[in-house]
Amino acid sequence: MGGDHGVRVTLPAIADFLQDFKDCSFLLVGDEKQIQPFLADRPPMKSHCSILHTEECVLSSDPVAVALRQKKASSMRLAIEQVRDGAAQAAVSAGNTGALMALSRFLLKTHPGIDRPAIISALPTSKGHCYMLDLGANVDVEAEHLLQFARMGTLVAQLRDDMTKPRVALLNIGSEDIKGNQLIKSAHQLFIDSDLHYVGYIEGDGIFRDEADVIVCDGFVGNVALKSSEGVARLLTERIRSEVSRSPWRKLLGLLSLPIWRALKKQMDPSLYNGASLVGLTGVVVKSHGGASRQGFLNALAVARAEAINNLPSRIALSFQSNQS
Amino acid sequence: MGGDHGVRVTLPAIADFLQDFKDCSFLLVGDEKQIQPFLADRPPMKSHCSILHTEECVLSSDPVAVALRQKKASSMRLAIEQVRDGAAQAAVSAGNTGALMALSRFLLKTHPGIDRPAIISALPTSKGHCYMLDLGANVDVEAEHLLQFARMGTLVAQLRDDMTKPRVALLNIGSEDIKGNQLIKSAHQLFIDSDLHYVGYIEGDGIFRDEADVIVCDGFVGNVALKSSEGVARLLTERIRSEVSRSPWRKLLGLLSLPIWRALKKQMDPSLYNGASLVGLTGVVVKSHGGASRQGFLNALAVARAEAINNLPSRIALSFQSNQS
Repeated sequence: MGGDHGVRVTLPAIADFLQDFKDCSFLLVGDEKQIQPFLADRPPMKSHCSILHTEECVLSSDPVAVALRQKKASSMRLAIEQVRDGAAQAAVSAGNTGALMALSRFLLKTHPGIDRPAIISALPTSKGHCYMLDLGANVDVEAEHLLQFARMGTLVAQLRDDMTKPRVALLNIGSEDIKGNQLIKSAHQLFIDSDLHYVGYIEGDGIFRDEADVIVCDGFVGNVALKSSEGVARLLTERIRSEVSRSPWRKLLGLLSLPIWRALKKQMDPSLYNGASLVGLTGVVVKSHGGASRQGFLNALAVARAEAINNLPSRIALSFQSNQS
Repeated sequence: MGGDHGVRVTLPAIADFLQDFKDCSFLLVGDEKQIQPFLADRPPMKSHCSILHTEECVLSSDPVAVALRQKKASSMRLAIEQVRDGAAQAAVSAGNTGALMALSRFLLKTHPGIDRPAIISALPTSKGHCYMLDLGANVDVEAEHLLQFARMGTLVAQLRDDMTKPRVALLNIGSEDIKGNQLIKSAHQLFIDSDLHYVGYIEGDGIFRDEADVIVCDGFVGNVALKSSEGVARLLTERIRSEVSRSPWRKLLGLLSLPIWRALKKQMDPSLYNGASLVGLTGVVVKSHGGASRQGFLNALAVARAEAINNLPSRIALSFQSNQS
């Protein structure tokens, strides 16, 4: 278990989480030799954890076929099986996204009426946050899939933020003439004809401008938009850091400005937005960024808890059922 | 002439430009009643400018068809015609992108071997800048078009930055399994088989990490990536500004930190990256952001000058000719 940093990040994050949520318990799927020593020193945490031992794990370099067909005892697979079998209400992984998606889809299946699961995550906006999907699960989609994504995104926003009518937008490009490819145009019509609270097209910069609560796109576009935004935010942060460290006087200014940086971090820290859900499945599966910090993994756990408590999968199933009948 | 701010931005920018580049002259296409008064006060500028009067202009809300078929005397159309007829070496516009692309393509045509023009622009990276194309001209492309974009991007990097072997990358998404759609996979193979200095796939965050000099993608993905990045950069800047203005003490810190902000602005200011070229055409056409500042429009003029002086269109034509033979 554990993504790039392994149990060094995930176990401390779980310890933090249990401080706040004593109603939760954990089934730690992985190598007990790595997990046991951490628990041994922490009796209160230990009482909320049990270990499902396995030494096999999916590597980030493993092709999906290997995760799916060869590594039958991988920690990732076992964790999802626990959700399928009702032994756990949610699985959280910081591992290989492609493998997690494929295993989840294979083991948990999608609800009737949903062709494909999608990856959804919160993103910061000028007034709070929005949800965007799909962030990388589906690279070739049809308009009907985008409509399904929009419905699922609406339910996520309703359940997580207690909204009644989340504004749904389609991610598109700006220039008048070339407004969108065929896929977007077809989806646009489907959205208009639906019962969604559809507010129309949105451009890339609109994501962060609070123009919508749910932003829908295919997985290729969504993943590129998300990663590009992360990239430019990181570049800006690095540049600020390098400018501040250029002289002792600037360093002093930087120190004096710490409360400002802390406040900014509180609003924009990627950790706060870590934890993307795989929606459309019969169980809760949450993907943490492979390189997530302790704070980031903690956030992914909170996302998983919120979805499990709200019973998101059943609510989605119900909504799609009533929409079909 | 002039985008969102009209001649209030473009004319002062031209005045600035002429301070630095006395080898240039301008044919100002637009309403002489707006242009004349500005020139009247500035004899040195006036001696480098002539006016091509027209009152018709393409609005940002005009559909492409209107720009193409109805507004035969629009300032945009007349400006491109000057390039076609050899009366100007470059056209710079802050107007409707779709119309500019369509008119340029119709009036200037593409070179033999190039199916579609593309929009290319510089973007900041951790070590300097890179070039990305297509940024929105083509939403439905084939692998062969991406190869053409890559060749054109290579030439732009070579000519503008005096590079010998620009590193070319294909923009893709991360997760192992779902590495790219069919288009990307086909293009990947074409790139490998070409004489490009191809370094492989790059993810969205790699754009800003100096992983490549030329980044190739279709216009939909490129536009979304660009706009999303702009959006998140703007959000960060706004948040910093709002945090700094929260108390008199913080405002003082902000003032003392002005040299830091100025240095950052010097590196990351969107103005510095304003000016996207329409490449693949028989003439130089540069698109300035509609909302560009004086500094931004100045930068777009510099891009146009550089391409005209380097004779980019002929160099591209030559390269495609030799590649076909």
